[in-house]
Amino acid sequence: MPTIDGDRLLRDLYAAREIGKYKTGVHRPTFSPQDVEARHWLAARFTDAGLDASIDGIGNVYGRDPTPGRKLLLGSHMETQNHAGWLDGAMGVIYGLEVARTLGRGIDVAAWADEEGHFGPFIGSRSFCGLLTEHEIDVCSNRETGVSLRDAVRQAGFSGRPRQKVDAGRYRGYLEAHIEQGADLEDHHLRLGIVTAIVGSRRFRIEFKGQQNHAGTTRMAARKDAGVALVKLVAAIEARFPSVAGPLTVWTTGDIKLDPGAPSIVPGRAELVFQFRDTDPAILDALDATLNELLEEAARGPCEVTVTYRGSTAPSAMDPGFQAALTAAAQHHAPGLHQPMPSGAGHDAQILSQMLPSAMLFVPSIGGISHHYTENTRDEDIVLGCQVFADAAESILAKG
Amino acid sequence: MPTIDGDRLLRDLYAAREIGKYKTGVHRPTFSPQDVEARHWLAARFTDAGLDASIDGIGNVYGRDPTPGRKLLLGSHMETQNHAGWLDGAMGVIYGLEVARTLGRGIDVAAWADEEGHFGPFIGSRSFCGLLTEHEIDVCSNRETGVSLRDAVRQAGFSGRPRQKVDAGRYRGYLEAHIEQGADLEDHHLRLGIVTAIVGSRRFRIEFKGQQNHAGTTRMAARKDAGVALVKLVAAIEARFPSVAGPLTVWTTGDIKLDPGAPSIVPGRAELVFQFRDTDPAILDALDATLNELLEEAARGPCEVTVTYRGSTAPSAMDPGFQAALTAAAQHHAPGLHQPMPSGAGHDAQILSQMLPSAMLFVPSIGGISHHYTENTRDEDIVLGCQVFADAAESILAKG
Repeated sequence: MPTIDGDRLLRDLYAAREIGKYKTGVHRPTFSPQDVEARHWLAARFTDAGLDASIDGIGNVYGRDPTPGRKLLLGSHMETQNHAGWLDGAMGVIYGLEVARTLGRGIDVAAWADEEGHFGPFIGSRSFCGLLTEHEIDVCSNRETGVSLRDAVRQAGFSGRPRQKVDAGRYRGYLEAHIEQGADLEDHHLRLGIVTAIVGSRRFRIEFKGQQNHAGTTRMAARKDAGVALVKLVAAIEARFPSVAGPLTVWTTGDIKLDPGAPSIVPGRAELVFQFRDTDPAILDALDATLNELLEEAARGPCEVTVTYRGSTAPSAMDPGFQAALTAAAQHHAPGLHQPMPSGAGHDAQILSQMLPSAMLFVPSIGGISHHYTENTRDEDIVLGCQVFADAAESILAKG
Repeated sequence: MPTIDGDRLLRDLYAAREIGKYKTGVHRPTFSPQDVEARHWLAARFTDAGLDASIDGIGNVYGRDPTPGRKLLLGSHMETQNHAGWLDGAMGVIYGLEVARTLGRGIDVAAWADEEGHFGPFIGSRSFCGLLTEHEIDVCSNRETGVSLRDAVRQAGFSGRPRQKVDAGRYRGYLEAHIEQGADLEDHHLRLGIVTAIVGSRRFRIEFKGQQNHAGTTRMAARKDAGVALVKLVAAIEARFPSVAGPLTVWTTGDIKLDPGAPSIVPGRAELVFQFRDTDPAILDALDATLNELLEEAARGPCEVTVTYRGSTAPSAMDPGFQAALTAAAQHHAPGLHQPMPSGAGHDAQILSQMLPSAMLFVPSIGGISHHYTENTRDEDIVLGCQVFADAAESILAKG
């Protein structure tokens, strides 16, 4: 059984943290100078490890084992949310690097560009899987700065390069390790989670149009208050969704905006961003139907309602054989301290699983915190996770 | 009975509209270069009309009749909301000028600085009534630019001047004309409104603190969603207020903000701006008590609730004798086409009424629109209103 080098693993993670360091975390949004630096740094680490390193035309960093034979692909992402954690993404990539070094052969490693969605959903892994069109690249732009994806890739120095595409015959499958981003492992005093499925999500932008008016002179009966219409919809969702949801369903109104948003003006326009997630497609459909009923009720009010579907992802079941390999390795190194669990967050593995057998391993997030610079995982959990990941990778490769 | 010069009145209003013209309206925020220009322009018109003109240390433009005897004070304001209407404020000031010219004596005219609250509530009229302290001038700043009131007054060239104070013995009372800023007159095919009272208001900022979390990995039961807590409060207000409110009560949630306001993050903080208005203090108190009950209910939820009182104004009853004078003049010039009505909007008259008998006259707003550059009133309604205003002023002065 191969033994990883825990100190080397942590040294590389600490080194990656220095690139875009923010307080105890990292600020490394996709194609920022820091993110580009991190990609080049990673490619150099791949080369050091004996992999053929390249960065492709969408920013994916790819390290290919030059030896013959079927491979296992390991990966995650290097960019971060704004002012976010040091391990979210980077840990899975450096696990891949460490496992490649430890096993010596059979491992390719990838850092998928923009898993965090600064420009769009799963840009890099969808490109690799042939699910990202040139047209989508044309129209995507940075959600904050508005810079187009094409310009960002050009400024990063990656334009004109081919985009790497998955060679399904080359791979036995795909494995990804990630921090949990929740507190379930910690709450149950566990050290490892073996992901059973990644939730599917449906995402909406809902807009109400009423009539902007003076808040002192417009009588209640005459109002078309877009803000009140919005609030009534969200309250109805909160009242009705629990009866339709499964035990692990989550739904979130992430943002609300009233226009013009002044104390003495009845809002003429209001907008909310809403999403729900579950691993069961039937539950997602039932929630969708309930939302539509509530929107129809809302449309009978004084304001006009418009729904924009911002996207959906199907639930992704993880490969049972890979789950078994991860579970066996976890049981070997941390008997009784692991559990099967769904992933409530999206991951590149949900894209890769459309092309290759895929699975994921979680390590605990201290306090369940993620997408914040205080995100952290205990060093011993980081090292344990990588050892389990290496053992599972070896056992999967051993099956040919 | 004196007859106003309708053409002269409209010429002056058109001239005022040129100063800071924006599309068909005006952009003349308090102490902007355009606003300062308008104040100097107005002072020159006062001088032309034989009044002793001055601009005081807070920007109030004041035209005093130099003849002996008791006076009637007429006024309104010259600055506008951003990109707003041409008549909101300016009409009442130019009515004052036109009535002073028409009656020849007995009329003082004032343009109160910052009725629109770019720096604070009713800065100019409160200064005139002795209700604005030096300390408040020290701490007020522009709600958009952050420029301090002191600096703005200095840049306008008015600092170092004394602030004019009301001489209650000089005045028979105060009259103000204004556009309705609502559609009640138009809806009832009326041309004049005689204001019975100006509503009082209570204004709040309500903040919820919960816990920011990942929207995919944080189970519903574990959430402290500040946005949901906020929505539940607003929905409860909408459900409960109608049973406590009077027929003319209005309440408004003017703004909602979720923090951080991202699609996949459970909001950790949420904030709303809320106000209600009525002419009856007992109703205001009952609404206050209801709001407090709802806040106590909200505080029993998973989030912390904090309320900041952003201010309140007491309802202001208008002088019955002045109302009778306005009604008689309205009935003379537009029989059956006028009504008594409350003012849902705040006006300088609510400040002046604390020192002097006061009343207000409304003319119709086309489509009820105000605080928007499309605000307008038919020329014949503008002229009719001024004639009625002049007649009422003469009859009030005739009573000594």
